[in-house]
Amino acid sequence: MSLEKTEMSLEEIKVLAENVLLKNGCNQNNALAIAETVFKAERDGSESHGLFRIPGYVNSLKSGKVKGDAEPSIENELKSVITVDGNHGYAPLSLKIGLPYLTKAALSNGIAVMKVINSFHFAALWPETEYLAENNLVSLACTAYKPSVAPYGTKKPFFGTNPISFAWPRPGKTPFVFDMATSTLAKGDVMVAARDGHEVPDGTGLGPDGRPTNDPNKILKGVLLPFGGYKGSAVALMVELLSAGLTGDYFSYEAEKFDNNDGGPAKGGELIIALNPEIIAGKNWVNHSEDFFKNIQNIENIRLPGERRHKNRMKTENRLINSNLLDKIKSLNT
Amino acid sequence: MSLEKTEMSLEEIKVLAENVLLKNGCNQNNALAIAETVFKAERDGSESHGLFRIPGYVNSLKSGKVKGDAEPSIENELKSVITVDGNHGYAPLSLKIGLPYLTKAALSNGIAVMKVINSFHFAALWPETEYLAENNLVSLACTAYKPSVAPYGTKKPFFGTNPISFAWPRPGKTPFVFDMATSTLAKGDVMVAARDGHEVPDGTGLGPDGRPTNDPNKILKGVLLPFGGYKGSAVALMVELLSAGLTGDYFSYEAEKFDNNDGGPAKGGELIIALNPEIIAGKNWVNHSEDFFKNIQNIENIRLPGERRHKNRMKTENRLINSNLLDKIKSLNT
Repeated sequence: MSLEKTEMSLEEIKVLAENVLLKNGCNQNNALAIAETVFKAERDGSESHGLFRIPGYVNSLKSGKVKGDAEPSIENELKSVITVDGNHGYAPLSLKIGLPYLTKAALSNGIAVMKVINSFHFAALWPETEYLAENNLVSLACTAYKPSVAPYGTKKPFFGTNPISFAWPRPGKTPFVFDMATSTLAKGDVMVAARDGHEVPDGTGLGPDGRPTNDPNKILKGVLLPFGGYKGSAVALMVELLSAGLTGDYFSYEAEKFDNNDGGPAKGGELIIALNPEIIAGKNWVNHSEDFFKNIQNIENIRLPGERRHKNRMKTENRLINSNLLDKIKSLNT
Repeated sequence: MSLEKTEMSLEEIKVLAENVLLKNGCNQNNALAIAETVFKAERDGSESHGLFRIPGYVNSLKSGKVKGDAEPSIENELKSVITVDGNHGYAPLSLKIGLPYLTKAALSNGIAVMKVINSFHFAALWPETEYLAENNLVSLACTAYKPSVAPYGTKKPFFGTNPISFAWPRPGKTPFVFDMATSTLAKGDVMVAARDGHEVPDGTGLGPDGRPTNDPNKILKGVLLPFGGYKGSAVALMVELLSAGLTGDYFSYEAEKFDNNDGGPAKGGELIIALNPEIIAGKNWVNHSEDFFKNIQNIENIRLPGERRHKNRMKTENRLINSNLLDKIKSLNT
């Protein structure tokens, strides 16, 4: 595979993503909501959630699995519980419509929860937790996916890579945010390593023969491992229960059963909990937590999660996009 | 150190714990609430949270750090947010008094949060999450402690062992529960290993020279490491923010600053989030999640978190208590 790269501005990236999606069956609202997640990913250097996802989105439009013109609907009968039904569209529009409701509920009640169902998730989770943090809310989000991770001690793909994202607001500063797969490595990163011919670190996964390997191609045919042994495996299991058991949408093993394997996202649920520190901790919460950040940042060799992403964000120069990927995307735009 | 053990019935364990606490300054309510956590820990084979903790409790009574006759007070102005102020007593009584409020709030509002402040926590977290699960609620609890864990990439103790517990209700069955330190090993387990002359696994911690070691004595003078590398370190950081930033009580580094190091618990906050699956997921939640458990339990070699603890619970025979510990506790009872 070629490692050649092509320069693009962030605006060009966003417009390209939007146009390809419009051309292939998304309406304006859906195309824009997805293009915004692609833009944010490329801006922050999260390659595996950027343009890399566009061919998959297009596949799922072409196969008819996802409705490119879906209009999500909101239910909010109980003040602290919000349901967004994606009506078989993509998650980004559901989130765009639902997050202001969740924000309002958590700001006034102290805590609120939103479930997103009947939608197809293919993006990172930090855009939603970061949005909530920018509205002075603490938040936790997670989602499951098709099985690719073996529970600790086993060799059978059963968990999705089941990411979990957490954000803490820092008024006047970039919020503290992490967003991590509960596998040792995110599947997108294994796919990018396979494409680019890189090895992956020890412990990432097992080949189809059930043995540890550093070859991403073998792992993609085998199974990923959870991060942190049995403890990480417990967290991955918790994500299944929160994002499927508590939303009523698919567990990973169900998502696989009902997916058409077109290379696009599978149907699944997302759960987001938002908490208002002003109400729960009281007025001093900003000073108190900023003192914590000051103390941890003073430790020698410390690197906080999200720092690299937020540093990438500051770069004003063009982004470098894999040229093969770009050719492929452009061919979908005709 | 002697490894000799003495047989005791669970009832004897509970009565001994209660009597020693009464003798040393606890009132009846506090002594009973603590004795119940000791009983549950020994019943479930969690040695490091059982009688092992009694000398520490007594130290903190003798030094006057903790009030053995504290009466916790409850605030619940906003329906979904509950504050339990321990008024400088031990956490078990605060929890015993607060959990019914949290239960009621989550059952009627779908989600609720409880913070426990001005209290001293020395027990496991699963008794509270399991209580909520027995009331058909999903829950997540965490607390921070004095620094003993180095953030990923550093050698400085900054995080507590910062446990996190999650429980999922299984009506008619034992709930699914995990409770784990976000360090590779809980500090109590390192202390028990040191006492019993056992090595600890690779990756548990660094000695005072900053180098990896399997000697628990060296680690107790050095630093523990977070589980799962930078991802586990991110979870440990989240626990600091939830249990201190969001309660307004001490971060680990603050707890250390203000503690008198009498060997008893340090002051700290605990945060518990409870969610009602009946409201959030809908009526089908039990069937749906039980199908998940059936599927995961069918995987070859699977072992679910909490299984061993729940198996220990079923044993009707006497428990074996370290004889030196027992002598020490009995000497505190005169």
